[in-house]
Amino acid sequence: MDYSYAPGRNHLFVPGPVNIPEQVIRAMNRNNEDYRSPAIPAMTKILLEDVKKIFKTTAGTPFLIPTTGTGAWESALTNTLSPGDRIVSFLIGQFSLLWIDQQQRLKFNVDVIESDWGQGANLEVLASKLAADTAHTIKAICIVHNETATGVTNNLATVRKLLDYYQHPALFLVDGVSSICALDFRMDEWGVDVALTGSQKALSLPTGMGIVCASPKALEATKTAKSVRVFFDWNDYLKFYKLGTFWPYTPSIQLLYGLRATLDLIFEEGLDNVIARHHRLAKATRLAVEAWGLKNCTQKEEWFSDTVTAVVVPPYVDSSEVVRRAWQRYNLSLGLGLNKVAGKVFRIGHLGNLNELQLLGCLAGVEMILKDVGYPVKLGSGVAAACAFLQNTIPMIPSRI
Amino acid sequence: MDYSYAPGRNHLFVPGPVNIPEQVIRAMNRNNEDYRSPAIPAMTKILLEDVKKIFKTTAGTPFLIPTTGTGAWESALTNTLSPGDRIVSFLIGQFSLLWIDQQQRLKFNVDVIESDWGQGANLEVLASKLAADTAHTIKAICIVHNETATGVTNNLATVRKLLDYYQHPALFLVDGVSSICALDFRMDEWGVDVALTGSQKALSLPTGMGIVCASPKALEATKTAKSVRVFFDWNDYLKFYKLGTFWPYTPSIQLLYGLRATLDLIFEEGLDNVIARHHRLAKATRLAVEAWGLKNCTQKEEWFSDTVTAVVVPPYVDSSEVVRRAWQRYNLSLGLGLNKVAGKVFRIGHLGNLNELQLLGCLAGVEMILKDVGYPVKLGSGVAAACAFLQNTIPMIPSRI
Amino acid sequence: MDYSYAPGRNHLFVPGPVNIPEQVIRAMNRNNEDYRSPAIPAMTKILLEDVKKIFKTTAGTPFLIPTTGTGAWESALTNTLSPGDRIVSFLIGQFSLLWIDQQQRLKFNVDVIESDWGQGANLEVLASKLAADTAHTIKAICIVHNETATGVTNNLATVRKLLDYYQHPALFLVDGVSSICALDFRMDEWGVDVALTGSQKALSLPTGMGIVCASPKALEATKTAKSVRVFFDWNDYLKFYKLGTFWPYTPSIQLLYGLRATLDLIFEEGLDNVIARHHRLAKATRLAVEAWGLKNCTQKEEWFSDTVTAVVVPPYVDSSEVVRRAWQRYNLSLGLGLNKVAGKVFRIGHLGNLNELQLLGCLAGVEMILKDVGYPVKLGSGVAAACAFLQNTIPMIPSRI
Amino acid sequence: MDYSYAPGRNHLFVPGPVNIPEQVIRAMNRNNEDYRSPAIPAMTKILLEDVKKIFKTTAGTPFLIPTTGTGAWESALTNTLSPGDRIVSFLIGQFSLLWIDQQQRLKFNVDVIESDWGQGANLEVLASKLAADTAHTIKAICIVHNETATGVTNNLATVRKLLDYYQHPALFLVDGVSSICALDFRMDEWGVDVALTGSQKALSLPTGMGIVCASPKALEATKTAKSVRVFFDWNDYLKFYKLGTFWPYTPSIQLLYGLRATLDLIFEEGLDNVIARHHRLAKATRLAVEAWGLKNCTQKEEWFSDTVTAVVVPPYVDSSEVVRRAWQRYNLSLGLGLNKVAGKVFRIGHLGNLNELQLLGCLAGVEMILKDVGYPVKLGSGVAAACAFLQNTIPMIPSRI
Repeated sequence: MDYSYAPGRNHLFVPGPVNIPEQVIRAMNRNNEDYRSPAIPAMTKILLEDVKKIFKTTAGTPFLIPTTGTGAWESALTNTLSPGDRIVSFLIGQFSLLWIDQQQRLKFNVDVIESDWGQGANLEVLASKLAADTAHTIKAICIVHNETATGVTNNLATVRKLLDYYQHPALFLVDGVSSICALDFRMDEWGVDVALTGSQKALSLPTGMGIVCASPKALEATKTAKSVRVFFDWNDYLKFYKLGTFWPYTPSIQLLYGLRATLDLIFEEGLDNVIARHHRLAKATRLAVEAWGLKNCTQKEEWFSDTVTAVVVPPYVDSSEVVRRAWQRYNLSLGLGLNKVAGKVFRIGHLGNLNELQLLGCLAGVEMILKDVGYPVKLGSGVAAACAFLQNTIPMIPSRI
Repeated sequence: MDYSYAPGRNHLFVPGPVNIPEQVIRAMNRNNEDYRSPAIPAMTKILLEDVKKIFKTTAGTPFLIPTTGTGAWESALTNTLSPGDRIVSFLIGQFSLLWIDQQQRLKFNVDVIESDWGQGANLEVLASKLAADTAHTIKAICIVHNETATGVTNNLATVRKLLDYYQHPALFLVDGVSSICALDFRMDEWGVDVALTGSQKALSLPTGMGIVCASPKALEATKTAKSVRVFFDWNDYLKFYKLGTFWPYTPSIQLLYGLRATLDLIFEEGLDNVIARHHRLAKATRLAVEAWGLKNCTQKEEWFSDTVTAVVVPPYVDSSEVVRRAWQRYNLSLGLGLNKVAGKVFRIGHLGNLNELQLLGCLAGVEMILKDVGYPVKLGSGVAAACAFLQNTIPMIPSRI
Repeated sequence: MDYSYAPGRNHLFVPGPVNIPEQVIRAMNRNNEDYRSPAIPAMTKILLEDVKKIFKTTAGTPFLIPTTGTGAWESALTNTLSPGDRIVSFLIGQFSLLWIDQQQRLKFNVDVIESDWGQGANLEVLASKLAADTAHTIKAICIVHNETATGVTNNLATVRKLLDYYQHPALFLVDGVSSICALDFRMDEWGVDVALTGSQKALSLPTGMGIVCASPKALEATKTAKSVRVFFDWNDYLKFYKLGTFWPYTPSIQLLYGLRATLDLIFEEGLDNVIARHHRLAKATRLAVEAWGLKNCTQKEEWFSDTVTAVVVPPYVDSSEVVRRAWQRYNLSLGLGLNKVAGKVFRIGHLGNLNELQLLGCLAGVEMILKDVGYPVKLGSGVAAACAFLQNTIPMIPSRI
Repeated sequence: MDYSYAPGRNHLFVPGPVNIPEQVIRAMNRNNEDYRSPAIPAMTKILLEDVKKIFKTTAGTPFLIPTTGTGAWESALTNTLSPGDRIVSFLIGQFSLLWIDQQQRLKFNVDVIESDWGQGANLEVLASKLAADTAHTIKAICIVHNETATGVTNNLATVRKLLDYYQHPALFLVDGVSSICALDFRMDEWGVDVALTGSQKALSLPTGMGIVCASPKALEATKTAKSVRVFFDWNDYLKFYKLGTFWPYTPSIQLLYGLRATLDLIFEEGLDNVIARHHRLAKATRLAVEAWGLKNCTQKEEWFSDTVTAVVVPPYVDSSEVVRRAWQRYNLSLGLGLNKVAGKVFRIGHLGNLNELQLLGCLAGVEMILKDVGYPVKLGSGVAAACAFLQNTIPMIPSRI
């Protein structure tokens, strides 16, 4: 049943699905259960409260939907908007592109603000559009917090400031798929109306749970949203929330226990420590890339992503060959360059339940691969740069002091 | 993390989610993997071929969608139909009711043929509608193969015969959630256009995979179907099938390996033997119910379901109390009566990876519960009736002879 | 990797190894760890304290030895006795026979008191030997608390009374392999000097941990015991207990976590409730046997075992055929008759983490098998008798009320 | 239940217990089974044949004993020797010391040949002893193939040559605990009479199975060996081998399936490739140590161990602090210096199912730790040296080309 055995652990550094901690694998190692027994609703009730913490919201209402990030997108859009609604969306990479494609196919009137791949969302254009839109024709701003294809993090606080500055009532919808639980994210403080993520990203679970959180304003919007929806309809959830049975259809028992286990680990570490760890690993990665003499696909430091680094290879190297070789020789899984940056970048995902020595093994591997494909890297250089930073910053493990 | 510990195994006899075999739990006990590596597409390719066998189709195209049965319904409808299309649907219990509700909310023009709960689909009314519909305004016949709420199995072969007799081109859409892999189901032979099931039913997996299979005619229908769809759009899958990467968005690695494992078990046992085992267990259950002096909710033998038995309790008993007591005293999970039959029936699910002695433990438990709630059952009577049948019919285990 | 697949769960009713609860399987589903890190000693320290509770001792010192029951026997004997020492031992079945064989091969002077298989230890003969032994040549009394081959439980309290009555200083060594954690066992109250069990019995773990508990008097005896021992030497453990590192050689990390998990379950249920559950299941089994018109191998009620029932088949039936058929047709694992009772009895093990409905499934299976092999059992009769008792005595599950 | 949580994977680099591959963890994730059913003997039969391959023997007889390496030692000695027998044993480190201690406590007349810790067995002294022993008073040569405390591998081929040269009939007993399945080991070719290992070493299983293999000459020796033994007596095994039931007492079902899984992985990789991988990882480690400017505890290249490297720290560093810090800050488990080399060396275990990037993560960690404890290492230097070697030598993964 394993189609491609290689000795030792697989080094999983794609930006999702990510490594599942042993504790979580264990928690999910179980038979099915009757989800209508009193046990599952009792568990769900606490989970819904706890899940709000990772969004940093107290006002929001979470939905745990048996779907992927793509489904979570659809859920966010169809519950709050009507066909024909004007929405502003930023095209900055493959995942924002796919979301925009979905928005268009769902019949919204998408006002696309495009940037070069490697740049963040152009918020100046947003500002001008908001300024011009005194009639409030813009119904929603849709933005990917972290574009996984290019390793670009957008500044959500600024989006909120602009909306406030122009006193614009547009809904603020955020794809937090590769950010929530890894990057600083503050749903309430930033006035995000819908935020969403997928279980297989920073939550370090298997794929299969789309986690969507809606502000009171977003819930209000459902009342007038005319988009056709059934499977993704929040109202079905809300109805069962009120009944205290919580589930309009069968949830994955295993993912519920997995979510419980992963939240327990996150809370034990402390969410802010989790975020700091992501920053530490990302910074170490960027220092390594610099030491290798390679460029980060992300064009400005303000957009640097702490969950994924897209590394630009020299023109004479095919980045797909880097990824292929990583897998064929080193049991290392790296992210491909997608669409416009196919062949030009490879990606190192450094999100989820991960530590420094795992990352350093990956970086050492990348050095050898770069040499394999003909790039004259100085072996050890990236690891040295990363270590110099990490040795100064890694905290002691609290449970072990 | 276990909210309600009780010694020994839980006896899981709800009609889904069902028991997962140890072999399958084991196969899913794993870390995430990069789904873009060559390994996962190679595995998927074989899975898609193998999955067709459980539908008994060679012409169909399967889709493994990260969703539940409710999502699979939506996928079947939106890919083949347009808002306003007239569809004929049968209301015979809670799950057909929910599907009809979805059909209406998806803006189809639903022509509902209602039966008493406990009866099968009224195919005579269907015949007359087909006869009358010379203009072919009916675009689809939607039918639940096995109504899980009442334990009623509809006769699909007859539906096909009627369509053929009237040379009616309507699509034939089948909810096979509690039938496929457990009841006799023949997609190609019966000319089913879309058939679907969920992973947590007879496939004995966790919830999270909607398995939909489309006939060539159904695929053709996608070209004109105007229902808005993105997450559930088959075309996105077909595009990636052609590319050989297979996945438009991230699948659950664990469910893929689980599906592989469960199909291996099904093929080792033999699909027809699996179906025969379901019949054996169901017949034993019905004999026990009869011996207890209770009635089957299913009104005629032709509709008897081999995956779930809904048992009617006497008027002075609340069937919810039967279910509650099963869980609180015997670590037994039974199915509640739903909606119209709430309080009136409890349900014994006997589908999935299950054997005779498991069922007999359940039946013995039900006898004690019936006594608990004041019904004067003769203890041992149901088990005796079931054993008398089973002792004559259980085959030897081939691998052990 | 599964050599003999059969659908559904295996019904494991041999008297060891027994069913492992899912919670415990989960806890052991883990990688190795460095047993010299601070974590494992910290865990071990608590385990050693907790393990004393299942022996009902505060004065005893437990040893968790990577071995089986046979090794635990050897550990008990060689640490407390010297070659040539006279010991009194009771031959009442296969396991007492094997222990006596070991005692003889370890060069002790074994004074065997034999009973018919199916009878308990002859304590009258013991009394006369103790009375006669004014010179205190008897160094130890070795007794199997529960003879697993015949389902006979000996009266340990009486042994203690006799020793006290005759003021005899002999050590009191008890094989509690199929009793501890299932039958009433009181190490301190009964003045047991060494008690032992194996992980795969009532503790419901995998095989591999011999659990031995020594009284202060037994520890004192080690100082003069001249039996050669190294691997089984308690002194090596005691040395490492003092150092706080606990392990003279590598323990199984998985079994330590498994022990933690299984003790947690036992303590949650309550040890006395666990014992009461074993009595309930055993009594139900005996009522079934009676209803079938068969005899219990155990000749008097005072010796009835609450962990295993050996059922005598009629002369025209081969009990091995019962066991074979159970496995080949019903996926049921029963215990063979051993040695003197081979072919004459089959055994139903009802110990460990087990509940009533599991047992009833087994009993229903046995009825069908009896019919298969030509015994004219009335189907349902045993189950009915068991249910009549159980329906009156099963308590509500505390966590679910 | 986890006493010291830290994010990400634990980096397990003690020389045992070692990392268990996911495939093997999965295979052991299972309930108990009746070991007397036909399935377990069928499985055991094949296992015993397959286990001979890792010893490179066709003439040997293997025993899978529920014990640890210490028990396997005892099994080797007591089955072949009698108290008072003269045996030659080499004291070169902590584990040879412990074995000698056992030999003495088992009442053998141990003729110890001592070397400095860090040196191999002094075979010249052996030669002179053999030369002098024309009366053949030496009954056995006991040698640790790989001394885990100092990372010293002894030359077994030379031992055999000496025995042959002097035509000496002494038994040749080998502790292969940290060698078999990792170092080149040839039982038949080298005329080894008893070889043994433990499951938690290169076999990458949990602790709990002592694997002992006896030559025909060793089996012959059992007939005259007067050492008292019961639990460890090979004759009990041989008796059950003949019966075809294989087990004199209960085996661990989980370890049997684990052994099956790990052997499958070893055979898929190819035993010689496994050995080559160990050499590759070890060489890389030694190059790193050299680049750090530190000394290998092993004094000559001929003794370099391919399974563990003992690194000598400068006098002003406490090697225990290195190990403590590794665990407290980096989630890295290193081996302590033991006994004579306590505080002076730390050990990197590089055996079992392990790959290059895992090792490089460890080496990067060690560099940071060395800096932490005040040793002026050049960060990246060791990794660079290791990578330079590895990048030239790592083969492609056969299943992925």
